[in-house]
Amino acid sequence: MEDRILLGHGSGGKLMYQLIREHFMPKFGMKSLNDSAVLKGITKGKIAFTTDSYVVSPIFFPGGNIGELAVYGTVNDLAMVGAKPLYITSGLILEEGFPLNDLKKILTAMSKAAETAGVKIVAGDTKVVNKGKADGIFINTSGVGVIDEGIEISPSRVKPGDKVILSGPIGNHGVSIMAERNGLSFNPPVISDTAPLNGLVREMLKKTKKIHALRDPTRGGLATTLKEIATDSGYCILIEENLIPVPPGVRGACELLGLDPLYIANEGILSAIVSSDVAELVLKTMQKHPLGKEARFIGEVQKSPVGMVLLKTAIGGTRIIEMLSGDQLPRIC
Amino acid sequence: MEDRILLGHGSGGKLMYQLIREHFMPKFGMKSLNDSAVLKGITKGKIAFTTDSYVVSPIFFPGGNIGELAVYGTVNDLAMVGAKPLYITSGLILEEGFPLNDLKKILTAMSKAAETAGVKIVAGDTKVVNKGKADGIFINTSGVGVIDEGIEISPSRVKPGDKVILSGPIGNHGVSIMAERNGLSFNPPVISDTAPLNGLVREMLKKTKKIHALRDPTRGGLATTLKEIATDSGYCILIEENLIPVPPGVRGACELLGLDPLYIANEGILSAIVSSDVAELVLKTMQKHPLGKEARFIGEVQKSPVGMVLLKTAIGGTRIIEMLSGDQLPRIC
Repeated sequence: MEDRILLGHGSGGKLMYQLIREHFMPKFGMKSLNDSAVLKGITKGKIAFTTDSYVVSPIFFPGGNIGELAVYGTVNDLAMVGAKPLYITSGLILEEGFPLNDLKKILTAMSKAAETAGVKIVAGDTKVVNKGKADGIFINTSGVGVIDEGIEISPSRVKPGDKVILSGPIGNHGVSIMAERNGLSFNPPVISDTAPLNGLVREMLKKTKKIHALRDPTRGGLATTLKEIATDSGYCILIEENLIPVPPGVRGACELLGLDPLYIANEGILSAIVSSDVAELVLKTMQKHPLGKEARFIGEVQKSPVGMVLLKTAIGGTRIIEMLSGDQLPRIC
Repeated sequence: MEDRILLGHGSGGKLMYQLIREHFMPKFGMKSLNDSAVLKGITKGKIAFTTDSYVVSPIFFPGGNIGELAVYGTVNDLAMVGAKPLYITSGLILEEGFPLNDLKKILTAMSKAAETAGVKIVAGDTKVVNKGKADGIFINTSGVGVIDEGIEISPSRVKPGDKVILSGPIGNHGVSIMAERNGLSFNPPVISDTAPLNGLVREMLKKTKKIHALRDPTRGGLATTLKEIATDSGYCILIEENLIPVPPGVRGACELLGLDPLYIANEGILSAIVSSDVAELVLKTMQKHPLGKEARFIGEVQKSPVGMVLLKTAIGGTRIIEMLSGDQLPRIC
């Protein structure tokens, strides 16, 4: 086999079958080549279904690569509606000439990530486009999961008095990508936080169903995520700058480059809006999980001003938080 | 709003929400912006799950565009395992500078195609990459459907004596793309056959469960598809060249360009391998459906030579049919 991807690898013929049989099927534990997978074990509860395409640049970055990012990102989208992620598909678009070794590394990362997150990659598709018509590799992952009876996570359940919990420090993913892209290095180094959040969410839901909203602050960062919840719920979210953990490396990078950590993408943290009577219980549960060790309260929900996010700043003022405008960091995931 | 796609449209912020709220949500009939859709109405039967990325070039071609191709292609993958397609996701990768008007046309085509096929587009994702890092637009669609009890369509059910039915003429999609790409025109014109096959399959399955294998011969064409079935079943498929309908335009184009119509991609036909005792019934049922009007027997399954596809040629010889090798027609879907 060639050591680079050829157009013929996407033609539907011999080369493609060879590629799939030698590299995809063993890695993903697939037994047959049907275009559609037949899923088993979904008999009760509601089903969640999601999709995400990954175009991150560079494809290898401190803490991971596009492969695990694609698996964890879709796992996390399912977890954020309270679903147990079960099945994932892998849709690859490769640029002619893409090194086969890089593809192998990425498939290995996808395979390990699926194992870590407890999901199965059940169907896939691979297309190849001419050199110069894509940027190495783009990956789409779609996912299916089940939501147990009684779980309903939706901004419409958010109420005044609810507490806002953040599971960990912000900004690591976005800054790690940006540093890699621009050849910058920070001390201490900034590593992407890419991780599957379904285990953490499962522990939280074991304790209570009073989790009203969950979001992983990816593109657009924590600010955009909270603004979405505030808009959809019709209430105000008040957060305190002093309570939001920003690692030194992220803070340094943001100061240097004039960025706001609230708008930087994350790939392994979540914000939860929970009923105040269970807030302490949820927080303690999160802190016992490796991905929630640094979980803390960062604010609460108020009745008004409607649909707004307010930030109490470190120096005592109040700032209105809007969605990200423009393109602070393109191709971050 | 700008009349071209900007990097900011993929940033997760304001511009992206504006794009989604103004263009995607009304077209796809979506009410909320959650990353994961919660599916309803799946309570019994097995679930089928599939994914496909579409990178066709050009994106507009005689008979359709990348939008309906993306919806019908995934609908067809589900139909080929006997599933009733229900839900589709839409993952778009846009190149910076892509004309908004083209995007609108494509979204309209996706919306109409979903309606025609009877599926709902329930979740989506949109990424934007820098100019020169993609080719206008790539679309991933993933799909979920349900397979009723008692339906099992799999090459492992194929047996010697089974009949091979082809639902319509071959080569239209591939030749229409190639003609458009190269500025060729044929008389009569060749139009892509892109169409949803789930309705046709439903009629067939209403009559009998003895449909052993179903495939839509897309990339790699009828030849590659039948070779896959022969390999997986461990039997021989014998087809007759004289029985395979090749439209005059397709034949002309293939002669001109030295291509073999058996390897040209199709997007609206299927081949079915059915038990001989129900073969006439299935054929007549197909012929009553608009997409099966020209359905006919093209061959049968034999015990040996194991895993091979043999073609009785028009001049009386026998040719061994292999999978497509190389890249006869890249980016055909």
